[in-house]
Amino acid sequence: MGKDTRSAIGVDIGGTNVPASLVDSDGKIIKTINKKTPGDSKPEALIDTIKDSIDQLNEKLKKEFPGSRISGIGIGAPGALDLEKGTIITSPNLKNWKNVPIVDMLKAVSRFPIYMDNDANLAAIGEHWIGAGKGFNNIIMITLGTGVGGGIIINGHIYRGSHGTAGELGHITIVEDGEKCGCGNKGCLEAYASANYTVKRAIKGLKGKVRSTLRDINPKDLSAKDIFIHAKNGDKFSTHTLNESGRYLGIGIATLANIFDPDAIIIGGGFAEAGEFIIPSAISEAKVRSFKTIMEKLVICKAKLGNDAGIIGAARLALIE
Amino acid sequence: MGKDTRSAIGVDIGGTNVPASLVDSDGKIIKTINKKTPGDSKPEALIDTIKDSIDQLNEKLKKEFPGSRISGIGIGAPGALDLEKGTIITSPNLKNWKNVPIVDMLKAVSRFPIYMDNDANLAAIGEHWIGAGKGFNNIIMITLGTGVGGGIIINGHIYRGSHGTAGELGHITIVEDGEKCGCGNKGCLEAYASANYTVKRAIKGLKGKVRSTLRDINPKDLSAKDIFIHAKNGDKFSTHTLNESGRYLGIGIATLANIFDPDAIIIGGGFAEAGEFIIPSAISEAKVRSFKTIMEKLVICKAKLGNDAGIIGAARLALIE
Repeated sequence: MGKDTRSAIGVDIGGTNVPASLVDSDGKIIKTINKKTPGDSKPEALIDTIKDSIDQLNEKLKKEFPGSRISGIGIGAPGALDLEKGTIITSPNLKNWKNVPIVDMLKAVSRFPIYMDNDANLAAIGEHWIGAGKGFNNIIMITLGTGVGGGIIINGHIYRGSHGTAGELGHITIVEDGEKCGCGNKGCLEAYASANYTVKRAIKGLKGKVRSTLRDINPKDLSAKDIFIHAKNGDKFSTHTLNESGRYLGIGIATLANIFDPDAIIIGGGFAEAGEFIIPSAISEAKVRSFKTIMEKLVICKAKLGNDAGIIGAARLALIE
Repeated sequence: MGKDTRSAIGVDIGGTNVPASLVDSDGKIIKTINKKTPGDSKPEALIDTIKDSIDQLNEKLKKEFPGSRISGIGIGAPGALDLEKGTIITSPNLKNWKNVPIVDMLKAVSRFPIYMDNDANLAAIGEHWIGAGKGFNNIIMITLGTGVGGGIIINGHIYRGSHGTAGELGHITIVEDGEKCGCGNKGCLEAYASANYTVKRAIKGLKGKVRSTLRDINPKDLSAKDIFIHAKNGDKFSTHTLNESGRYLGIGIATLANIFDPDAIIIGGGFAEAGEFIIPSAISEAKVRSFKTIMEKLVICKAKLGNDAGIIGAARLALIE
């Protein structure tokens, strides 16, 4: 237990699993229950799953730490959320879901206050609380994964914009007439630096005469993780492919640095696991492109909390709201 | 006089003139004294000029509005400022100036509190107070002039970044390997949408076989104002040139919309006078590029206060600090 007796539960609605963690007031994860995301597309089944995890964690808390209490439940979800209404508008992880009032549904089955935010904002809140952004006022969090997301901390608080949609950092235009992006725009950061598009670029590159151990893999099965592993094993093409993603990321970082003059820009998300091949290239490119006075003071680094950032951020949301 | 008896003086340090205005608590300019910027490069002469204006405005206030008082003096300056130290590091308007402690120098000759900020931040503060941004919480101000600057209002307050350098919106990369920008980067918004670079692009275009009434002007003398006037008179090349600047501005606006989800993006600065040929193109381009949910709610418009935005913002700074 942390320095006070309050704790919170963070829940991360993923496509495969729905981990729920009991987190103490210092950000320490006391216990995690990791259930499978229900296979059918009914929101009710997911609500039941989350409710079960909450009940189990609450039982554990009451038994092992009598006198302590849960402040609330923080829910993280990817996709388009309506934070004011507490609904999941659409989500890549939950197909066929449309405008699901997840907060109200959870409130109906739980006596705890329920909070929700998108996964990138929660990662920013988590990293700011006890991770790579600890002690800083102004932080830009970039989450590299299938796509590219972002969270903005201004004066110590998450900035959600005027209608809850701020922080779409993957959709900064970096190439005027560039690759078509899933959002409809051309040349977005996501269309160059995300795991998905890095794989696409690798497959395209392999159609040329380049030598690479990635040729042993059927292009249909090629993943960003493969590229990372082959880069680690010395494959130059894989290394170059990741470096290029980093270089593009650096263009986005330069834009963000010149706009925000932040204390830190933190790179998280699953694809940041390949950070050793991405982040140095990003820093080199950003240094050439952004104001020297800003870059001299700016910290650019990998996130510290890994996969736990979102769940810790979700718990924090419930502790501070 | 405004609703209370406080007023403030706003000063705008320009390359040619140093206007100083007495502004009431409603943002109304009561009187302006417009002196020439001293020709020599000695800061002392400028301090004397500003002091004279302050004294004259204070005399007027005491005579005509007895009982009212000046809350402070707000100074606006272009260029690189150190807001913590109150120094002008360098300024395009004041050659040979380096690290001039303008705030301390003014404090030494005046009994009023002295505040300073850069011209784009002050324009944002002014427009937020009584201009196009009135009533909004989150505003992005883009100042189009010789260069492109910016001011960011978050939750009603100017956001200066962690080291006072935030808001360099002219230095968003919009074209990966684009035009070389004065800042050292390539493809900055400023290198496409500023008055200077618009003139450069026009001169380049005129080297081709295009028909244009701009051919009557010696390219060495061509100004952004000429292009605007010729566009107004129906010259298609001039219109197209300004539309193109607008289209590039739209790429920057799309990036800013997706990052900030603000209430409004306001276009000010001298070159915004040609806004009728720039802003509609910018909006069209931004609509194609940014999130539909953000664009539906976003106001994109021309600034309202024109040249007075900076001086009114400077006075506001002195009234609220």
